[in-house]
Amino acid sequence: MPVNLPTLSASSLLPINGVTLGFAEAHIRKPNRKDVLVIQLAEGSHVAGVFTQNRFCAAPVIVCKKHLASNSEIRALVVNTGNANAGTGESGLQHANQSCDALARLLNLKSEQVLPFSTGVILEPLPVDKIIAHLPTAIKNAQADNWLNAAQAIMTTDIVPKATSRQLSIGGKTVTITGMSKGSGMIHPNMATMLGYLATDAVISKQALDAIIHYAVNKSFNCITVDGDTSTNDSFIMMATNLAGHAEVTTSSEDFIALRDAMTDVAIELAQAIVRDGEGATKFMTIQVEAGKNEAECRKVAYAIAHSPLIKTAFFASDPNLGRILAAIGYAGIDDLDVSKLSLYLGDVLVSENGGIAASYKEAQGAAIMKEAEILVRVVLNRGEEAATVWTCDFSYDYVKINADYRS
Amino acid sequence: MPVNLPTLSASSLLPINGVTLGFAEAHIRKPNRKDVLVIQLAEGSHVAGVFTQNRFCAAPVIVCKKHLASNSEIRALVVNTGNANAGTGESGLQHANQSCDALARLLNLKSEQVLPFSTGVILEPLPVDKIIAHLPTAIKNAQADNWLNAAQAIMTTDIVPKATSRQLSIGGKTVTITGMSKGSGMIHPNMATMLGYLATDAVISKQALDAIIHYAVNKSFNCITVDGDTSTNDSFIMMATNLAGHAEVTTSSEDFIALRDAMTDVAIELAQAIVRDGEGATKFMTIQVEAGKNEAECRKVAYAIAHSPLIKTAFFASDPNLGRILAAIGYAGIDDLDVSKLSLYLGDVLVSENGGIAASYKEAQGAAIMKEAEILVRVVLNRGEEAATVWTCDFSYDYVKINADYRS
Repeated sequence: MPVNLPTLSASSLLPINGVTLGFAEAHIRKPNRKDVLVIQLAEGSHVAGVFTQNRFCAAPVIVCKKHLASNSEIRALVVNTGNANAGTGESGLQHANQSCDALARLLNLKSEQVLPFSTGVILEPLPVDKIIAHLPTAIKNAQADNWLNAAQAIMTTDIVPKATSRQLSIGGKTVTITGMSKGSGMIHPNMATMLGYLATDAVISKQALDAIIHYAVNKSFNCITVDGDTSTNDSFIMMATNLAGHAEVTTSSEDFIALRDAMTDVAIELAQAIVRDGEGATKFMTIQVEAGKNEAECRKVAYAIAHSPLIKTAFFASDPNLGRILAAIGYAGIDDLDVSKLSLYLGDVLVSENGGIAASYKEAQGAAIMKEAEILVRVVLNRGEEAATVWTCDFSYDYVKINADYRS
Repeated sequence: MPVNLPTLSASSLLPINGVTLGFAEAHIRKPNRKDVLVIQLAEGSHVAGVFTQNRFCAAPVIVCKKHLASNSEIRALVVNTGNANAGTGESGLQHANQSCDALARLLNLKSEQVLPFSTGVILEPLPVDKIIAHLPTAIKNAQADNWLNAAQAIMTTDIVPKATSRQLSIGGKTVTITGMSKGSGMIHPNMATMLGYLATDAVISKQALDAIIHYAVNKSFNCITVDGDTSTNDSFIMMATNLAGHAEVTTSSEDFIALRDAMTDVAIELAQAIVRDGEGATKFMTIQVEAGKNEAECRKVAYAIAHSPLIKTAFFASDPNLGRILAAIGYAGIDDLDVSKLSLYLGDVLVSENGGIAASYKEAQGAAIMKEAEILVRVVLNRGEEAATVWTCDFSYDYVKINADYRS
């Protein structure tokens, strides 16, 4: 079960002026589930996107990048689950374009004004006719307060929908931010198997939105891992409808930092929610690596810990078998690491220093912390000033079960 | 259960002239199991070693390297299971030295003539007194035909002992090679959580033995992975007693290649045995990446596939969810990879080309191959002449169970 994820209520998700969301059940892979989502944006909106770095990137990712680069005003997004339209070659590109064409026709737009997204099984042809046949339904039931339905419509192996809202005041006007994400397995830095959508009515320049999305992704979706697999389809989109009525926020505005940080907070919550709902997760771990020479080496150590199946299974078992963490630090790839200098903490408890067990450490302390649902692992390298944080979950029987059964 | 590992009989393991092996039950972690091994070597033997590259390398690894570098004639090895003597700081080094001192006293050697090895739980003090107290037993029952007992004495989470023998003829004399290995989890390139010992009566120069061990390790133990964790204690030792009666083999001898290849064959069989007995393994996979620009990029792709929990669970489930393999190829880190150029084969079946599903591919073909216990995954990058092979196993419920329960 997801780790400390509150049950979402529709009313907790605030509508964004200028954004409507509609869905359909197209039976793409399984019957009786929402699997098509259409997001419509008011005229004058700004849209920015960040995508997977996987070389085998999916057809919709290629089309999204092309449409964003065309500088057409993006006015609609179409998302399907059940099929990733990845590893589908030329015909996959045609299918992604066909779904954009069809939605553009229905909404009286150009195809370049539509962004397509797919998530699900790789290497199977997209049943694009089913998607197209259900677009009218998703247009018909479009509403501004449909965020919970929308968050449900993008789920695959997710157990719970993931979405959140924030408000802040800019120039005397209330600005609202609402976002949602999906993803549960194949989750790794440089984006996860995840789709993330964050919308705001803030008035913000295109340039400032681009700056914010890169800042926010580095602090959020690029800091999570479930299984170390980077997906073919990862996409994170920020949409600003520019309808809140305050003066435009640019990168040099006084309010830029406040808006950036509020949007980043939403992104962090959405990213952490993916880990909390990680496939089979029973624990949420924060891996914090401090006092490194640079951020890159801190991330190396954090990811070595976060990716280790041995460590993840020990957390699942609540077994303070902490030597496995030392081993991961040792193979993280810092060639000149002096292990006698570093300290390892579990929560507030000093576990290891001087290359060995801390004199003050008692296994009962470690055992108590390992039983908790949220655990902080802190590594102090004592060789510099930089730090990095990664969030991950444990590795349980259910991870194997979910991934052994996913397609059947 | 181990994948296609034959039950070992004591008689299949050939004694090596000049090598005796003795064991004891010292109750280091668990009662009633062999957990101390002493190997004695005849005067005039040559010994070479390769060790973990983990920065947190264990105390016995540090001591082994020092003793080998001292150019003392190595005459004895002492191995314990149940405790890795890793992450144990200064006192760990003292303990490793104490066990060498004790064995040296009993055998009338200098401490530098003894190599120590430990495997088991990290971050707990080594109960060195128990080891020392049981050395006389392990000396008393030493015999040349004790290889099966020895292979059992070095097991931790291994289900079966792993050992093998080969013979070849050099200069009209029969030369015998016998080796054994242990390891099952925390198995990764640059050595596994593994101990490997290979002995031969061949007459071979120290320089030639050094050349052979590096060649053999690169073709064997550095090509396997179970879970991507590189251990603190990995050690592989080659011992040549020089008693076979033929002229000394040097790197320029006519027989060098034959001897090198025979010893490498033994190393490969021992390395593959570790994967076949990988924690929870039900399948043995060979990942072969061909036609790359260089060996390094081929290894990157092979390891991305071999480390992916999503792929490993799909193999466990016999589910030809092969898009996961394309995803792994895509995130393996080849920045200029053109995915439309590569081909993916499962066994002899072409699965993917031109960035999509091969026109000839039928899922029933993939499903049939996925049911087999030994599976070949072949990736043809079509961008060069180099290749690399990695062996791995699947990821099952039992992997989680074994590692969640390991200490308890």
